[in-house]
Amino acid sequence: MPDRLGPPLDTPLVSRLALVGLGLIGSSIARAARLRNLAGTIVAVDRDPAVIRRVEELGIADEATTDPTAGVRDADLVILCIPVGGFAAVAKAIAPALKPGAILSDTGSVKKSMIEQVTPHLPEGVHLVPAHPVAGTEHSGPDAGFATLFRDRWCILTPPEGSDPEAVAKVAALWSAMGANVEVMTAEHHDLVLAITSHVPHLIAYNIVGTAADLEEVTQGEVIKFSAGGFRDFTRIAASDPTMWRDIFLHNKEAVLEMLGRLNEDIAILARAIRWGDGDALFDLFTRTRAIRRGIISQGQETPEPDFGRRREE
Amino acid sequence: MPDRLGPPLDTPLVSRLALVGLGLIGSSIARAARLRNLAGTIVAVDRDPAVIRRVEELGIADEATTDPTAGVRDADLVILCIPVGGFAAVAKAIAPALKPGAILSDTGSVKKSMIEQVTPHLPEGVHLVPAHPVAGTEHSGPDAGFATLFRDRWCILTPPEGSDPEAVAKVAALWSAMGANVEVMTAEHHDLVLAITSHVPHLIAYNIVGTAADLEEVTQGEVIKFSAGGFRDFTRIAASDPTMWRDIFLHNKEAVLEMLGRLNEDIAILARAIRWGDGDALFDLFTRTRAIRRGIISQGQETPEPDFGRRREE
Ligand SMILES: NC(=O)c1ccc[n+]([C@@H]2O[C@H](COP(=O)([O-])OP(=O)(O)OC[C@H]3O[C@@H](n4cnc5c(N)ncnc54)[C@H](OP(=O)(O)O)[C@@H]3O)[C@@H](O)[C@H]2O)c1
Ligand SMILES: NC(=O)c1ccc[n+]([C@@H]2O[C@H](COP(=O)([O-])OP(=O)(O)OC[C@H]3O[C@@H](n4cnc5c(N)ncnc54)[C@H](OP(=O)(O)O)[C@@H]3O)[C@@H](O)[C@H]2O)c1
Repeated sequence: MPDRLGPPLDTPLVSRLALVGLGLIGSSIARAARLRNLAGTIVAVDRDPAVIRRVEELGIADEATTDPTAGVRDADLVILCIPVGGFAAVAKAIAPALKPGAILSDTGSVKKSMIEQVTPHLPEGVHLVPAHPVAGTEHSGPDAGFATLFRDRWCILTPPEGSDPEAVAKVAALWSAMGANVEVMTAEHHDLVLAITSHVPHLIAYNIVGTAADLEEVTQGEVIKFSAGGFRDFTRIAASDPTMWRDIFLHNKEAVLEMLGRLNEDIAILARAIRWGDGDALFDLFTRTRAIRRGIISQGQETPEPDFGRRREE
Repeated sequence: MPDRLGPPLDTPLVSRLALVGLGLIGSSIARAARLRNLAGTIVAVDRDPAVIRRVEELGIADEATTDPTAGVRDADLVILCIPVGGFAAVAKAIAPALKPGAILSDTGSVKKSMIEQVTPHLPEGVHLVPAHPVAGTEHSGPDAGFATLFRDRWCILTPPEGSDPEAVAKVAALWSAMGANVEVMTAEHHDLVLAITSHVPHLIAYNIVGTAADLEEVTQGEVIKFSAGGFRDFTRIAASDPTMWRDIFLHNKEAVLEMLGRLNEDIAILARAIRWGDGDALFDLFTRTRAIRRGIISQGQETPEPDFGRRREE
């Protein structure tokens, strides 16, 4: 039940909350904020008129507009929920309309670049509190969102040095109220951690699906038919939004290339073990990797059911 | 409901079915065969006495023994459901007890090696029909099996040239009755197809989980916490049985190394695109890969639900 997020608050945390970008993440925030009464007024801003119409139909915001300046005016908290490549332009556009004391936050998957893009445009008196909820699905758009997306997931805040503690606490409280656990770290460390836990896995998944599609000896039909042997697990994250992921790789270049380099070294060692028939080396790795999954399951980041709980009977 | 597999047959397809190895696959065959009355008598053979005891408790076989020779005697169909590395030894051990006209089959994930291991021991008059059901989970052992494991999945038969058509038809009928779609191809082609759809994905998953576990800059605790960004999808198949997977890589060396080589070339191209900021190349790949997932979903090999249908509410 969505109400497992907790009862509505008596007093909203934020009086006016503006969400820029009403896709999977923005619309999930809107839904959770509505459900728990986290904001007095929820304003939806999206450049796509079709998205705005859909938001109105879904009834997940109090106001909805394609005009970013009008949308963020008087907001106490503005959260940019758009692809990472768009931060500089949007920050520039909305800056004149941000009220003194407002908090500017985001949900972008890369944090150093976010800070670099936004800082030059930040008006005096506006607090920057970058955030990244580590939660999502392979679907996008306002229909893909749901109120419990962030429950029991982590949300990482990367406030620049010298940030206003009250502003940080406000953003942390909002994410906690949406069911997330909040962690604070530097933007640099965030980008490194996410490179290995999210960006490189996506890159590898895209890559393996692309390689399989291009083979001459094995047809695409065969790849599809026999995908239940493991391949299909990779296709889920390789079906994620291309714009979002292009932007992530362009904006977290260094950490991704660094982690990819490590991975390649380890692949070379593994290939050598296979070539020389070193069964013990393989067995050893294949045993070590199980501990990590057990950790992920025991810490509630994954279902223990076999096959992710994909339905067996229907 | 398990009974969606279909009603029990009036007359069993096989009078005496011996299953050697009662793990995930062997015990699933036993369950499906029992449910649909596919065998007059089901004999379970496993070298592990604890497995035999568990099979008796579960009541999924009519007879159960740790003695392979006694177990396969008088069987019309013997299916080896053990790791690929064990075929030669087991074939040698059971050969004298196989009755003329019997069919020897298996479920191994590698087929050229299976044929090479078994052929030298095959008695005159015994038919070899290698098979590989492309279905499974990350769990092993007799408790992990279930009757519908093979439903709507593919089972690949790789009969050597000159095989007895009736024997092939019998094995095909058994798999069809367990809900599988049957496809016939050469062992060589099978090993190449599975290298890309199953073996290399597992290798990459083991590898990425191993790399993540070994980093100094990112702790294992962080990897676990923030795994919902994509990493956790890889840990499922990297939690599969180490013995089974060691054997697969040792016995499908050439095809795996060949496919891994292709993958590495493509990773290099992708790394280059990131380094040079070629957003179009990234966007293009990330768009192409979605078609494959759509194919997998539309052909019933995957659930269309976001996140594999991992539960959202509990
Ligand atoms: N999806 C995930 O799993 C996930 C998880 C954690 C964090 N994130 C991050 O969260 C952010 C949003 O992701 P999402 O999955 O919610 O994206 P999404 O579903 O693709 O939605 C993004 C929305 O923002 C709109 N938009 C783009 N540029 C805009 C602009 N300049 N002004 C106003 N609206 C604009 C888009 O409209 P157009 O279609 O016209 O561009 C779209 O409606 C990204 O930075 C992403 O990295 C995503
Ligand atoms: N798991 C999958 O997803 C999957 C999918 C398709 C095909 N396959 C193939 O199917 C086969 C079985 O896999 P599985 O997952 O069912 O394995 P499993 O759950 O690990 O079970 C294998 C069973 O066979 C027993 N065994 C091993 N060597 C034996 C021998 N010489 N004589 C008698 N029993 C022996 C094992 O006992 P011990 O514990 O004592 O070794 C264990 O009880 C493998 O060849 C695998 O490649 C697996």
